Amino acid sequence: MAHQRVPPIELERSASEPLYAQVAGRIRELVAARVLAAGDRLPSERDLAAALGVSRSTIVAAYEDLAASGLVERHVGRGTTIVEAAVHGEWSWASHIPSSSASALAQILDGFKSRTRIGLEIAEPATDLLPIDELRELTASIFDEVGAEALGYVPPEGLPALHEAIARRYGLDPGRHAVLVTSGAMQGLDLVVRALVSPGDEVIVETPSYPGALDALRRAGARLIPVAVDRDGIRTDALAGVLARGRPKLLFVVTRHQNPSGAVLSPNRREALLALTRQHAVPVLEDAMLAELSYDGFVVPPLVAESDTDHVITVSSLSKVLGGGVRVGWIAGSPTLIDAVLPVKQHADVNTSGLLQHLALRCFESGLVDRHLERVRPWYQSRGGTLAAAIRRHCGVGVRFEAPRGGMSLWLALDPHESADEFARVASMHGVGVVPGSAFSVSGEQGHRLRVSFGNRTDAELEEASRRLGKALAEFREPSFPRRVSRRAS
Amino acid sequence: MAHQRVPPIELERSASEPLYAQVAGRIRELVAARVLAAGDRLPSERDLAAALGVSRSTIVAAYEDLAASGLVERHVGRGTTIVEAAVHGEWSWASHIPSSSASALAQILDGFKSRTRIGLEIAEPATDLLPIDELRELTASIFDEVGAEALGYVPPEGLPALHEAIARRYGLDPGRHAVLVTSGAMQGLDLVVRALVSPGDEVIVETPSYPGALDALRRAGARLIPVAVDRDGIRTDALAGVLARGRPKLLFVVTRHQNPSGAVLSPNRREALLALTRQHAVPVLEDAMLAELSYDGFVVPPLVAESDTDHVITVSSLSKVLGGGVRVGWIAGSPTLIDAVLPVKQHADVNTSGLLQHLALRCFESGLVDRHLERVRPWYQSRGGTLAAAIRRHCGVGVRFEAPRGGMSLWLALDPHESADEFARVASMHGVGVVPGSAFSVSGEQGHRLRVSFGNRTDAELEEASRRLGKALAEFREPSFPRRVSRRAS
Repeated sequence: MAHQRVPPIELERSASEPLYAQVAGRIRELVAARVLAAGDRLPSERDLAAALGVSRSTIVAAYEDLAASGLVERHVGRGTTIVEAAVHGEWSWASHIPSSSASALAQILDGFKSRTRIGLEIAEPATDLLPIDELRELTASIFDEVGAEALGYVPPEGLPALHEAIARRYGLDPGRHAVLVTSGAMQGLDLVVRALVSPGDEVIVETPSYPGALDALRRAGARLIPVAVDRDGIRTDALAGVLARGRPKLLFVVTRHQNPSGAVLSPNRREALLALTRQHAVPVLEDAMLAELSYDGFVVPPLVAESDTDHVITVSSLSKVLGGGVRVGWIAGSPTLIDAVLPVKQHADVNTSGLLQHLALRCFESGLVDRHLERVRPWYQSRGGTLAAAIRRHCGVGVRFEAPRGGMSLWLALDPHESADEFARVASMHGVGVVPGSAFSVSGEQGHRLRVSFGNRTDAELEEASRRLGKALAEFREPSFPRRVSRRAS
Repeated sequence: MAHQRVPPIELERSASEPLYAQVAGRIRELVAARVLAAGDRLPSERDLAAALGVSRSTIVAAYEDLAASGLVERHVGRGTTIVEAAVHGEWSWASHIPSSSASALAQILDGFKSRTRIGLEIAEPATDLLPIDELRELTASIFDEVGAEALGYVPPEGLPALHEAIARRYGLDPGRHAVLVTSGAMQGLDLVVRALVSPGDEVIVETPSYPGALDALRRAGARLIPVAVDRDGIRTDALAGVLARGRPKLLFVVTRHQNPSGAVLSPNRREALLALTRQHAVPVLEDAMLAELSYDGFVVPPLVAESDTDHVITVSSLSKVLGGGVRVGWIAGSPTLIDAVLPVKQHADVNTSGLLQHLALRCFESGLVDRHLERVRPWYQSRGGTLAAAIRRHCGVGVRFEAPRGGMSLWLALDPHESADEFARVASMHGVGVVPGSAFSVSGEQGHRLRVSFGNRTDAELEEASRRLGKALAEFREPSFPRRVSRRAS
């Protein structure tokens, strides 16, 4: 089916692209669009040159370009023909997706997957406690009083009135601090990491630490340096040693009701942490997301509100107080730092929904946040107590943990040689979802621990979940239980 | 003020950290916490060893570690003393923030900065047209019918019912496509870029192109290869040439009412684009954000809905239809691709607000999206006509543009030798905000162009803005206008 009709080629003489490249490009396009097919013979160089009003050497160059890329073959006597295109295989995304580290957060978010089992993976506020009537009223008042403005674009840094409300509540100083509104605290962490961390940078993290932050840091190419946490928070003596050996780019720390361990940074360590990082000029990224969920109502201001903390950034949100659907968080820090994060916010999602920002503002201003905190603190303490007692009853002394002082999770320890990854699989078969310690670890060092979250579970569910955990544990500890030897030997 | 009291050091004999390192770390912490100060003498090795119950060699090792890091000096006879700490300068973020490319999007978002001038920077839907009563009703119905669930966490991939509504509307095939709900289209672009693009990867973009996408690609370390756009969309002949020369990682394209040029990809080019990218196995990322804002109501399905497009990803949102505050967008593509993007979504912001997802769902299901599109299409066409006529009247033939077929922007051209960056400064002094072409360009190649957006401006504002632009243009073209010679010569 050789045809030598002159193919429909338009040239743009004023374009910066050379004419030969235009000819070659147009022919490629015709092949791609299947106007020209394998076996088709192209016009002779002379004919095409005449038809297009260009020199023969232009067409020679075009055909040679096409031959070099394998699209045509040139034979003396037979002219220039389109070759059989490489057979198109099935499209496969596999070769297009860089192998990136697995998602640690996914192990928590798996909690959405099955509603038939009792999922204890997600540290989720109690939806049945949510002040839904007040939220409905506040939302209606936005439509009435703010109107369409609330549904338009808002400045990427957030509503000024919300900045002020956050600064007032958390003791920030308008002369020293700037605030950036985010779509939840996780976004705040991710934005700061993207602004500050380059591939290969060393970043100090607690072990255990929050999986979402570990994921964000790993994607940024950070090399993670773990520092142990005990019940008084990050071990500042170990931190001092790490800081003496290198100059990490960032320290990420969860200061109160640490996720997952529940640790609360002691006043001495808090002072040491600030002094050490100041001395070594290492920026501190604080996650204060759970700080207000203390069972005794005792709340300590964020690190950034202390004096002499220009190197500190605090990230927090309303998601653990009012619910993950509100999705309004913030970053507070030096104006210079916020200026560096702002462009990342812009291309991350332009701005956080104005409607949700107005809602958050009204939640602060109406006193709802405080009223709701008063309501949920004893509730979480009670739920945590229910779960702790039930686990002690059903699992006995074979599972150890300390009573938390806030938050909505227990951090359980199996025996040091046991694999929580394996136990989580057994628990899942028994209808309970838990998050194994590996999700919270830098390199597997929390292997015998697991997190169970109780924020959005009823007492009955917690009792039943504990019963199932007890049965799972008994099965897991049967001498005949088939263990993955290779994993345990590693 | 040498004191030789034994400092308060606690050791943990069961810890994996060697004892000498624990001693050194604790001393560092005491210095940081200012318990020990410059000039203080530490106890003798023997005394400290005895006090702590460790061997003398442990203390020798600890002191040597501290000396190696410059914290102490050791002199025979004088013992071991804390040295003057390096004088702490003022904390400066400058050395902690990687120099990253400037934000192109910021030039648009500057539109928020001053409300006194007439900002034409932001392509923002008309807030005075927003169906605020219907949105109020739909939102109230969420509180009544869904309740607290809407304010909890939802699965990171989004509400299944919203997936189905999007698939139905845009002709997706549940057997072939997956959907990921995002916090607006910008987040969709950013997530795909983060999932697919590694530093140094080549990515083909249109020139001009959307600044937010350029920002996201630059932050991912992409090397951008520009391909020209004319009124029929991306020049597929030039694209064919680029594809023949290399294997780019991605092609980013805005197919309809291209931002900023207004170009609409012609059917032939659409076919060629799909065939070329399929042939060369290059993934296509389509932004279809403005596709439905055609003045004639003619809407073409997204590329991903065509057959044989497993290599295509389409990103879109409701933000240009219903307002930037709704912030619900989506990514549609092969399930494998969506699986690769999902972990990025998780650590970017965990999930898009359930409240907003329920609102978007109800906007689709109630027919509000379609009714609103019917309402705004003639409105934008009329506003665009007003602005075009006013610019012609006030700026004459010295500013050229083509009438758009959809969207909410005009793409203006000054004379090819003129700098739109300079003109934008003059326009700003005359009280009009415009976005110079440099924001939309890969390397300055759109220097004489500028975008003006009219979506959220009244006829009176557009008339006044055009009058000011005319005055700015006259001043800009005065022979005595002080030009930046270096910039123009470059």
